[in-house]
Amino acid sequence: MAVLGKFSLAVLLLSLLVLCAGLALATTDPELKQCKDQCKHQRQYDEDQKRECLDRCEKYYKEKEEQERKGEGRREEGRGTGRRDEKMQELYERPCEWCRMRYEKEHHGREEEKEGRKENPYVFEERHFTSKARSEHGRLDVLQKFTEESGVLRGIENYRVAVVEAAPQTFVSPTHWDSHAVLFVASGRGTITGIQEEKRRSFNIEEGDVMRVSAGTTVYVINRDEDERLFIVAFLRPVNIPGETEAFRAPGSQDHESFYSAFSWELLEAALKTDRRKLERILNQNQEIFTKASKEQIQGMSQREEGGGIWPFRGESSGPYNLLHQRPVQSNNHGQLYEVDRRYYEQQLEDLDISVSFANITRGSMIGPYYNSRATKVAVVVDGEGYFEMACPHVGRESQTGSTYQKISSRLRRGTVFVVPAGHPVASVASRNSNLQVLCFEVNARGNTRYPLAGKNNIVNKMEREAKELAFGVREREVDQVFGSQSGQWFFPGPRERQWEGRADA
Amino acid sequence: MAVLGKFSLAVLLLSLLVLCAGLALATTDPELKQCKDQCKHQRQYDEDQKRECLDRCEKYYKEKEEQERKGEGRREEGRGTGRRDEKMQELYERPCEWCRMRYEKEHHGREEEKEGRKENPYVFEERHFTSKARSEHGRLDVLQKFTEESGVLRGIENYRVAVVEAAPQTFVSPTHWDSHAVLFVASGRGTITGIQEEKRRSFNIEEGDVMRVSAGTTVYVINRDEDERLFIVAFLRPVNIPGETEAFRAPGSQDHESFYSAFSWELLEAALKTDRRKLERILNQNQEIFTKASKEQIQGMSQREEGGGIWPFRGESSGPYNLLHQRPVQSNNHGQLYEVDRRYYEQQLEDLDISVSFANITRGSMIGPYYNSRATKVAVVVDGEGYFEMACPHVGRESQTGSTYQKISSRLRRGTVFVVPAGHPVASVASRNSNLQVLCFEVNARGNTRYPLAGKNNIVNKMEREAKELAFGVREREVDQVFGSQSGQWFFPGPRERQWEGRADA
Amino acid sequence: MAVLGKFSLAVLLLSLLVLCAGLALATTDPELKQCKDQCKHQRQYDEDQKRECLDRCEKYYKEKEEQERKGEGRREEGRGTGRRDEKMQELYERPCEWCRMRYEKEHHGREEEKEGRKENPYVFEERHFTSKARSEHGRLDVLQKFTEESGVLRGIENYRVAVVEAAPQTFVSPTHWDSHAVLFVASGRGTITGIQEEKRRSFNIEEGDVMRVSAGTTVYVINRDEDERLFIVAFLRPVNIPGETEAFRAPGSQDHESFYSAFSWELLEAALKTDRRKLERILNQNQEIFTKASKEQIQGMSQREEGGGIWPFRGESSGPYNLLHQRPVQSNNHGQLYEVDRRYYEQQLEDLDISVSFANITRGSMIGPYYNSRATKVAVVVDGEGYFEMACPHVGRESQTGSTYQKISSRLRRGTVFVVPAGHPVASVASRNSNLQVLCFEVNARGNTRYPLAGKNNIVNKMEREAKELAFGVREREVDQVFGSQSGQWFFPGPRERQWEGRADA
Repeated sequence: MAVLGKFSLAVLLLSLLVLCAGLALATTDPELKQCKDQCKHQRQYDEDQKRECLDRCEKYYKEKEEQERKGEGRREEGRGTGRRDEKMQELYERPCEWCRMRYEKEHHGREEEKEGRKENPYVFEERHFTSKARSEHGRLDVLQKFTEESGVLRGIENYRVAVVEAAPQTFVSPTHWDSHAVLFVASGRGTITGIQEEKRRSFNIEEGDVMRVSAGTTVYVINRDEDERLFIVAFLRPVNIPGETEAFRAPGSQDHESFYSAFSWELLEAALKTDRRKLERILNQNQEIFTKASKEQIQGMSQREEGGGIWPFRGESSGPYNLLHQRPVQSNNHGQLYEVDRRYYEQQLEDLDISVSFANITRGSMIGPYYNSRATKVAVVVDGEGYFEMACPHVGRESQTGSTYQKISSRLRRGTVFVVPAGHPVASVASRNSNLQVLCFEVNARGNTRYPLAGKNNIVNKMEREAKELAFGVREREVDQVFGSQSGQWFFPGPRERQWEGRADA
Repeated sequence: MAVLGKFSLAVLLLSLLVLCAGLALATTDPELKQCKDQCKHQRQYDEDQKRECLDRCEKYYKEKEEQERKGEGRREEGRGTGRRDEKMQELYERPCEWCRMRYEKEHHGREEEKEGRKENPYVFEERHFTSKARSEHGRLDVLQKFTEESGVLRGIENYRVAVVEAAPQTFVSPTHWDSHAVLFVASGRGTITGIQEEKRRSFNIEEGDVMRVSAGTTVYVINRDEDERLFIVAFLRPVNIPGETEAFRAPGSQDHESFYSAFSWELLEAALKTDRRKLERILNQNQEIFTKASKEQIQGMSQREEGGGIWPFRGESSGPYNLLHQRPVQSNNHGQLYEVDRRYYEQQLEDLDISVSFANITRGSMIGPYYNSRATKVAVVVDGEGYFEMACPHVGRESQTGSTYQKISSRLRRGTVFVVPAGHPVASVASRNSNLQVLCFEVNARGNTRYPLAGKNNIVNKMEREAKELAFGVREREVDQVFGSQSGQWFFPGPRERQWEGRADA
Repeated sequence: MAVLGKFSLAVLLLSLLVLCAGLALATTDPELKQCKDQCKHQRQYDEDQKRECLDRCEKYYKEKEEQERKGEGRREEGRGTGRRDEKMQELYERPCEWCRMRYEKEHHGREEEKEGRKENPYVFEERHFTSKARSEHGRLDVLQKFTEESGVLRGIENYRVAVVEAAPQTFVSPTHWDSHAVLFVASGRGTITGIQEEKRRSFNIEEGDVMRVSAGTTVYVINRDEDERLFIVAFLRPVNIPGETEAFRAPGSQDHESFYSAFSWELLEAALKTDRRKLERILNQNQEIFTKASKEQIQGMSQREEGGGIWPFRGESSGPYNLLHQRPVQSNNHGQLYEVDRRYYEQQLEDLDISVSFANITRGSMIGPYYNSRATKVAVVVDGEGYFEMACPHVGRESQTGSTYQKISSRLRRGTVFVVPAGHPVASVASRNSNLQVLCFEVNARGNTRYPLAGKNNIVNKMEREAKELAFGVREREVDQVFGSQSGQWFFPGPRERQWEGRADA
C-alpha cells in the first residue's frame, strides 16, 4: 500500500510535472497577447480595422478556452494544435496572406511560382475590392489599400482604385469625397454633374472619356442608356489621411446616413432656418445611392448648363477628354497605345502626379518587355483576357550580395488590377480569343520614358560593339542574333505556346 | 515509512513549489515584455519618450514583484488583477487615452458622446501643450504632435502649434529653429528682429499681424508695451524630422544650455579666437529665455534697421501683413471672415502649403455648416467662448459597407485648438456673452474652396429639380422648404437653445 | 491518517495544479515570440531582413532548448541567463546597436561620449556599407538606410549613398536603377555612357565632375586609366519604395542574374524573335559587373557619340559639370568652399531637392561652427583626415522643459559619411598632415543659407547692443571680446591642441 502510495504519488507528481511542462509551452496568455500585438502593429490597419482585429483575438481566445474546458483537462496535442493553427490562420488571414504566400514560395520553390496562380502583392482581383454600396441598381467598390498585405507598394500608398457600375437609367446620388479623382469611362453613356461653389455644370460622357474631379466637388451621375450598364474606373488621391478615402453624402438611407445627421437639431434648425419636423422627413427618406430614374428625369438632366459656369476642373476645361479619340502614340497590327496629351496632362493631372494611358493588345499579340523609367503603373484590365510577366527584385531575393529576379505573373481578365513599379521589366500578352484592353494610371509620370527591352529600339541594340561584347562576354554577332532579330516595335505577335491559355482549359 | 513517505512527499512538493515559483517569476515576464513592447512600438514616441515608457514598465514591474512577495505567496486573484489593471492603466495612460476613450464610446453609446465633454482626437486643450520655457516673464508652450494619440491626423503630422506669451517690457532671447514658422500676433504690441546672414531687420508688430519666419533665421522679440502681454501663435513646419521641432540658442542658462557648450573648448577657442575664461563667463551667465528689459533698452530696439536689409522673408516683403486690416471676404451682422490675399500667399506662404484666415463670429451667432474642399484647417481660439460640431466618418464607423457620421464636438474657449480635415462638414457657434474669434491655419490650401451646406448658396440649392427629387426621394418643394429657407450666407443667427452654455452653467 | 494523508495530498496536488495552470503563462515560448516580434516590428527591415531575423530566432531557440535538455533539467539560472543574454545580444546586434549605445551613454555618462569613439546615428563608416558587387576589378558598395539604426535621420530616409570603384582599364556593365542619382567623380579618369530611348551618348569624366543620371537610364562606365582607380560617389533618390533601391541588369552572371531570366522562354522567344538556345547562351555567359577591358575596347568607347543625341540629363546639358573648376564661393588660406551654380542646380538638381558642394580644408585648419538654415547635409570624406563636432539636441536630452545640446563628434577619414541636419551647429577640423576634402550632398537645398557662428559675420555680431546685453546678461564689451575677436571668415586656423590626433597616436 505504501509502495503503491509512493508509486501513485510518483506517477501523480510526474504527470503534474509533465502537465506543468506542457502548460509552460502552451501559455495561452502570450498567444492572446501576440495576437493582439500583431493587430496593433499592423501598420496598414486604420483604427477600426485594429479594433476588429483585437475583437477577433478575444473571440478566438474565448472559444479556445471553452474548448479546452470541454476537453475535461485532456490535451490531445496533435488535434489541438491543428485546430489552433487553423484558427490562427483564420485570425491572421488578412494581414498575413502575403506572409504565408512568401513562406510557401520559399519552401516549395519556384515550381509553384511558375504556375502563376498564387497571389502576389502586385496583383489584385475581385476579392480585394470592398463594396461601399451595392444593390440591383449599381455598385461602388473600392480596392483595398495597396499596402494592406505588403510593403512593396508603399511608394503608391496614397492612391486608391474604385469602380462604379450603374444599371441602365440609374441615378448615382450626389456625393463629395476627400480625394481627388481621375475618372475613366470604361463603357456606357451617362451624364456627370459637378457643383462648384456657385456653379453647376453637366457633361455627357462616353467610353474612353477621362475626367479629373477635384476633392470636395459634389458630383452626381446618371446612366442615360436604356440597355447598357455604365462602368467608370476611378483613381483616387486622398487629401486627408494617406491612402484613406471617405465619401460624404447629404441625403440619407439605412446604410448611408446623411452627414447632416451628425449635427444637433438645434444647430441645423438655426443654420437652415427650418424646423426639425421637416428636416427629419428629408433626412429619413431612406434614399439609396443608386436609384432608378424615369425617362423624363433622365432627359431633364442630360447636359444642361446653368449660368456661364465651367466644369469644376482645375484650370479651364470645356469638358471630358476622350483618350481613345486621340492618335495612338504607338500603333501596329498587334496593338495600339493611347496617352493623354501633354497639354491635358499639364492642365488637369500634373498636380496629382498622375497620367493616363490605354493599351489595346490585339488577340494573340503582346506588348513588351519594357520598363518605365520613373512612373509606377497601376493597370486595370477593362476588357479581354491574357496574362502578364514582370521581373521583380523585391520578392524572393536569395542573397544579399548578388541579385536575382523573380517572375511575377498572373492571368489577366476584366477587373484585374496589377501594378508595375518603375524600372521593372514587364510584358503583357493577349489571349487568342479577344483583344486585351488595359487602362493605366501612371504615378510619378512627369518626365517618364518607356524603355523597350525587345524590338528594333531595345536598349542593347543601342550599345556600341565594345559595350555589347564586354557586357555579354560574346562576339557582337551573337548578341545581335538575340537582340537584333525582332524588327517590330512595342507590340509583337505573341508566344506560340500559350502558357496561360493552356492552363485555363485544365 | 509513512513518515519518510510524507517527508519525501513534502520535499517533492516543496521542490515542485520552488519549480513553479521559478516559473511564477517567469510569468510576470510576458507582462513586462508586453509593456516594453508597447513602449517600443509607439510610433508617436521619440527616443526619449520610449525610454521613459520603458522605465515606467520596469518600475511597475518591480513594485508588483515586491507586492507579491509581501503577499506571502497567497494569490488573491480578484484584487490582484484589479490592482494590476489600475497600474497598467497608469502605465499606458498617455498612449492609450484615445484608445480608452474609443472603447468607452463603443460600449456606452452615443449618449455620452453627446455630452461633448470627452476628449477627441480633433480637439486640444491647455493640457496638451508642453512648456518649453516658463517664468514670471513669459512662456513658450508647444502643442503635442497631432498624431500623438491617434492616427486620424497623420495627414498633418509634419506641422506643430506653439504659443509665445511675453509679459510687458520683456525680451525674448535670440533663437533659431529647425522649423519654418508662420506667426500671428493675437494681442499686444512688440518688436521682432530677424538676422539673415549679413543683415538684421526689425519690425514693430501688433494684433492681427501675420509673419513668415524661415527655418534657421535667428529671431528675437520684445514686448514694448508697459501693461499688455504680447501673445503670439506660431504654426510650425519642421524641416528635419517630420513633426519634431528644436530650438537653438546661443546664450545659456540653467535650463537652456547654449549650443556653443556642446563644442570642445579647444575648438571654440580657435574658432572665436578668444580664451576659455572669457567664453565660460559668457556661456555661464544663466540668462533665461524671457528677460525683463529697461525702458531704454526697449526704446533702443524698437524698429531700428541696419543697412538696406530686407526682412528675412521668402521673396521680398516690406514687413508684417495685417490680416485684420484686410477687407473681410465674408461679412454680415453675424460675423466676418478674413483671409490673406492671393499675392501674400504666393509670395510668403505657398512653399509651406499654409494659408491663414480669421473668423470673428458675433456673440449668439454661428458659421456653417460648410466644408473645405482640400485644406485641413487647424483652428486656434484666440478669444471668446462657444462650441463647434463636425461630421466625422473616421470615428465610430459601425459597418464596412455602409457609412455613418459621428458628431465630433467640443466647447471652445481661448486657447482651444481644433482640427477640421478636408471634406468634413463643420459649424462653429459663439456664446451669447462674447464674440468667438478663431484663427485658422490651413494646410494644403492651394486651390481650396469652402462649400456652404446652409445659406443661400448651399450645394443642395444648386441642384436641378430632378437631382433634388432623385437624391432625397421627395418633391422638390419639400427639399426647398429645408434647403431654401435660409437667405443669409456663411454667418447666421445661432441656435436658440444653447447646448453648451446650458451645460456650462450646470 | 493514510486517508487524510492522501486527501491532503490530493488537495495539495490540486492546489498545485491550479497554481501551475495559473502559471501556465511561462518561459521559453514568450522569449521566442518576443524575439520574433522584434523582428517583425523592425520598421527598417525589408521582407528579406525580417525573414533572416526570424530564422535567427528559431535557430537560437533550438540551440537553447538543446542546451537545456543537455543540462538534464537542472536550471543554473546565473550562467544560463548570462549565456542567453549573450545570445540575445547577438540576435539583436544589428537592430539594437544604437539602442545599446544609448543605454550605455545613459548609464556611463558623458565621459565616454567625450571620447568620441562610440558610434552615433549621424556617422557611418566602412562597416555600414554593403557590397552589392565586389571583385578584383572593382566594387559597388551601398550605404545602409539612414534610418536603419535610428529614427533621427528619417527626414532623409528616401536618400541613399553608394560608392563605385573600378580598377584601371575596367568596364562597369550596363545597368539601370529605380533611383535618380547624382554622381561625383572623386578620382580617376573614365568614360560614362547613357542610353535614353533612341539615343546613346558618352562623356569623358574626371575628378570633380558632377552628373545627374535620371532613374531608368541604362548607364555603363569605363575606367580609361592604365594606373589609377576610378572612384565615384553616388547620391541616390529612389523612385519606388522610399529608401530602397534596386539595380536591373540585362547580362547575367552567377551572382547577378539577368532580368531577362525572370521571363518565360516562350515569351522571350516571341518578343525577341529568336530561339531559346541562342538566348540561353547569352544569358548564361556569367559576365560579372566589373570586367577587364582591352586597350582597343577602351579606345573604341572613349567619348564617341551616336547621332545628335544629348546626354540623358533632365533639361538640356552638354555634359558633366566640374565642381572644382568653379570659382570657390568662400576661399582663404585655410580652405575653399565650392558649390554648383544656380543655373546648374535649377536645370539638373532642383527636382531631386539636392545640391552639391565641396569643402577643401587646409591641413591644420577648420571650418565653422556654422549651421544650414534648412538643408540637411550628407557629407562624404573624399580625402584626408580630421574630425568634426556638432551640437545636437536629439540625443541625450535630459529634461522635457529645458534644452541641452550634446556634442556629436567623430574622427573623419576617407570614406566616412556624416550627416548634419538643418539648424545644427557644426565645425570640421583638418588634421595637421593632410587637407581634409569633404563632398556634401544637401537635401532640401532650395533657399538654404549657411549661418556663421564664428568669424566676422557671426550672428551675435549682427545684434544691436541692447540685444547682446539682454541675451547674454553682460556688457556689450564682454560679448564683443568673445564674438568680435575672430576677423577671418568660415575657414580659420584650427585648434592648437588636437583632440583627435592625440588620440590617434594612442
